Amino acid sequence: MSSHHIVRDDQEPALIIANGAACSMELMGQLLEWSPLVIVLDSAIQRVIELGIKVDVLLGDFDRGFDPEYYRNLQYPLEIVHTPDQDKTDLEKAFDYLIARKFPAVNVIWATGRRADHTITNITNIVRFSKQLKIVMLDDNSKIFQLPKKYGKWYPATTPISLIPVGVVSGISSTNLKYQLDNDELTIGYRTGSSNEVLADGMVSIEHHEGDLLMMECYD
Amino acid sequence: MSSHHIVRDDQEPALIIANGAACSMELMGQLLEWSPLVIVLDSAIQRVIELGIKVDVLLGDFDRGFDPEYYRNLQYPLEIVHTPDQDKTDLEKAFDYLIARKFPAVNVIWATGRRADHTITNITNIVRFSKQLKIVMLDDNSKIFQLPKKYGKWYPATTPISLIPVGVVSGISSTNLKYQLDNDELTIGYRTGSSNEVLADGMVSIEHHEGDLLMMECYD
Repeated sequence: MSSHHIVRDDQEPALIIANGAACSMELMGQLLEWSPLVIVLDSAIQRVIELGIKVDVLLGDFDRGFDPEYYRNLQYPLEIVHTPDQDKTDLEKAFDYLIARKFPAVNVIWATGRRADHTITNITNIVRFSKQLKIVMLDDNSKIFQLPKKYGKWYPATTPISLIPVGVVSGISSTNLKYQLDNDELTIGYRTGSSNEVLADGMVSIEHHEGDLLMMECYD
Repeated sequence: MSSHHIVRDDQEPALIIANGAACSMELMGQLLEWSPLVIVLDSAIQRVIELGIKVDVLLGDFDRGFDPEYYRNLQYPLEIVHTPDQDKTDLEKAFDYLIARKFPAVNVIWATGRRADHTITNITNIVRFSKQLKIVMLDDNSKIFQLPKKYGKWYPATTPISLIPVGVVSGISSTNLKYQLDNDELTIGYRTGSSNEVLADGMVSIEHHEGDLLMMECYD
């Protein structure tokens, strides 16, 4: 669990541990292994410390009355970043922090589950950062990322794939999906591309012209 | 747990048990108590039966290879509704079923958690039905419903309130919230009204002119 401190390659994704439901230790261990930087959001530090994980940055507005300095002593030299701006979520502030430090990519865990308002805000807000930071959000059942205008990847047959439009997305076309899209439009709340799947072992291609399209690879 | 079978007032909300994460038995018990009709979606029946709950309708496409007739024998006279339409989710089909039976309102549980694609689709799709069915989605941390164009309700101070736009919502104004809205626009993925709170004990009013706005009352 501490091997992420041996390799410090800033091309590897940083890891943000947010304040939603915890994921499996297996998933967390996989992501920690090569992560050059571990950021924990606000009071999640209480749960993270109990797991024996080495944290590099503690970031938050700390408005719930706990003392971040207590954790600096526990995890010297923990960097404490106080972000009182109430117009942004702690997760958005962590993205800003990584962009300022020129990280190219980040994995995010514990950002889903528990409060539905945080879940939906955390998932959909990643589209705002797509030009500056490659963001992948993960939980025990889901892998979420924004699709580029042209996307292609090899998948095994029957892999579940959901295409979720953040707003309206137009000009969507696909190959090798069970429910094919052909210059289609998806609109959140009205027509989404949830619960599609890969037709046959091989390349899946998904293109879209306008709008923010999320890919979700989810399993029961 | 079986008192919902004594009172059959179709003005009370029906209850849909979907296929996401289970909620507390306390929440489920509260909702079952007055529910005139309990609908379970597809393979969730396996988990619901184990809890000893009396089910009225089992609805789904049953495409995962289990035998719904097995449950009819366990829970006679269970109504089995086979809905093979692949263009709609089982939850949407259950809403259609209730609208056809002229139910005015429904509570939905187990619709969040686990797969993020199902969570976000289930939450945002309720806006499509707002003219025909009053839908409230609940889990252990969240109560979610669509706001009418003019909304007012008494809340205690510091109640957390999140306003989540499904797409773009314009002309939003509020009173008695910590972060006031004044003819503002919210856009999913770009500017949401998450993590607001009630300023003082009293009426909160929220109005909007255009678009679909979800209210989420969420607690940690």
